[in-house]
Amino acid sequence: MMHQTPVCRQIILLGAGRVAQHLGPALWRAGHRVTHIWSRTAEAAQALADAVPGAVPTTSLALHSLPTPDLYILSVPDGAVAQVLAAATLPPRALVVHTAGALPLAVFEAWPAVRGGVLYPLQTFSAGRLIDWSTVPLCVEAAQPADQTLLLEVAQSLSQLVETVATPQRQALHVAAVFACNFTNHLFGVGYALMQQAGLPFTLLEPLIRETVQKALAQPPFTVQTGPAARHDTATLERHQALLHQHPTWLAIYNQLTASIQEQQTVGAPNNHGRLSL
Amino acid sequence: MMHQTPVCRQIILLGAGRVAQHLGPALWRAGHRVTHIWSRTAEAAQALADAVPGAVPTTSLALHSLPTPDLYILSVPDGAVAQVLAAATLPPRALVVHTAGALPLAVFEAWPAVRGGVLYPLQTFSAGRLIDWSTVPLCVEAAQPADQTLLLEVAQSLSQLVETVATPQRQALHVAAVFACNFTNHLFGVGYALMQQAGLPFTLLEPLIRETVQKALAQPPFTVQTGPAARHDTATLERHQALLHQHPTWLAIYNQLTASIQEQQTVGAPNNHGRLSL
Repeated sequence: MMHQTPVCRQIILLGAGRVAQHLGPALWRAGHRVTHIWSRTAEAAQALADAVPGAVPTTSLALHSLPTPDLYILSVPDGAVAQVLAAATLPPRALVVHTAGALPLAVFEAWPAVRGGVLYPLQTFSAGRLIDWSTVPLCVEAAQPADQTLLLEVAQSLSQLVETVATPQRQALHVAAVFACNFTNHLFGVGYALMQQAGLPFTLLEPLIRETVQKALAQPPFTVQTGPAARHDTATLERHQALLHQHPTWLAIYNQLTASIQEQQTVGAPNNHGRLSL
Repeated sequence: MMHQTPVCRQIILLGAGRVAQHLGPALWRAGHRVTHIWSRTAEAAQALADAVPGAVPTTSLALHSLPTPDLYILSVPDGAVAQVLAAATLPPRALVVHTAGALPLAVFEAWPAVRGGVLYPLQTFSAGRLIDWSTVPLCVEAAQPADQTLLLEVAQSLSQLVETVATPQRQALHVAAVFACNFTNHLFGVGYALMQQAGLPFTLLEPLIRETVQKALAQPPFTVQTGPAARHDTATLERHQALLHQHPTWLAIYNQLTASIQEQQTVGAPNNHGRLSL
């Protein structure tokens, strides 16, 4: 599953949250050495170090006193990146990367002694779910060409899907991912709640959800849009709006998305209207 | 793939649109006889009859002049169901079912001589895509118990996933399906457009989309919600809002869904917050 590692890198991992919990063991399995794992709390640092052979837990940001690694990976909440950089004493010219989709590379500009970079895994990480890293797209960016090469090597040791993505593209990608992942999950949740209210199992929707995804991945999604909004089926839209009157927020979503689907038909590519079950 | 057919039914199919185009051949493969296919246009009736061995195309609604079948399947746009019923001359006590998710069984009450029923395939049908009918949930409803039995038999000859679903449940199911399918497809479309604008392939989002779906089908979706809305990451939300300023409709969707995710956290089950890549 893993690629051959060209070089075993020494890495210090800063952070012990969800991304770090998935990344630390994956780096070890890919042949690297995670020498230290920092977290604000000793418990979190210890728990993750237990899952990464050879890693020493620490709560100290006096990083200059540790052997200098090839790479520091800063996997903390977006808002904490600058805080950790400000609190840490790093050796000069340290290579530090963050793992955030929305944070610009320029976040490192306030620390001119740091060589900044980004290693953004485009996946949703939850506790208790195993992730196959070989299929996680990794977006790499670095201020300096040599660092870019090193990061690409590390990324390729983890995954088959490695892309060099500059900050503006990565930020657009992150917004796209919010629509395609976070928001669709919320809509699945609304569907789940509506099914539950009707006493029906959510799994009844599974074939439909799977076909929707297959179709969206096979053709531009706007061109295969179906449903009452797409076919301007006013009677059905009104029936649905009446059914949603107990859920004003979901009704607002219903109306917003219905309007957007119909607007898209007027500005977008020709749609294949037709009689559809949905 | 198909179940054994207990009884070969004689069926007249009214309609030649997307659902009828998928249903007609599936009924034949399941061992039934589609004796006639009606459509408003001779071309549409002929085209579908060509795909269903033994079927005779017709544009006449003088149905009393044809041999009486076990079942008429009315697969036309929701708004046309009543029109076709009004225009048709049916033999007395004919069993007629529609295939719409949102139409009540009571639509047949204006025709007391008709035995009404529903055979609703919960799937999205597009031209050129093959559908495995054995995994299409079929929702069955009938006014009379004997008709219910007949419809369940026909449904079970097509699919392994047959449910008796009364009108209110079916209508709730239909709204849920619009959220989980039509609306998610639109969000995939927005994601696709944003990726295209950034010069990135939509396929980069494929592992994330697949994991999102796997996760939503494994656990109640609201409990595995991730992303900047769920973690109240104001800096990222503001960055995304700024990026969407050229797309006011998508920005409105962004704000609406962000608000709904955060509202759900206050009313819903405990959420597993945490540091997540998205």
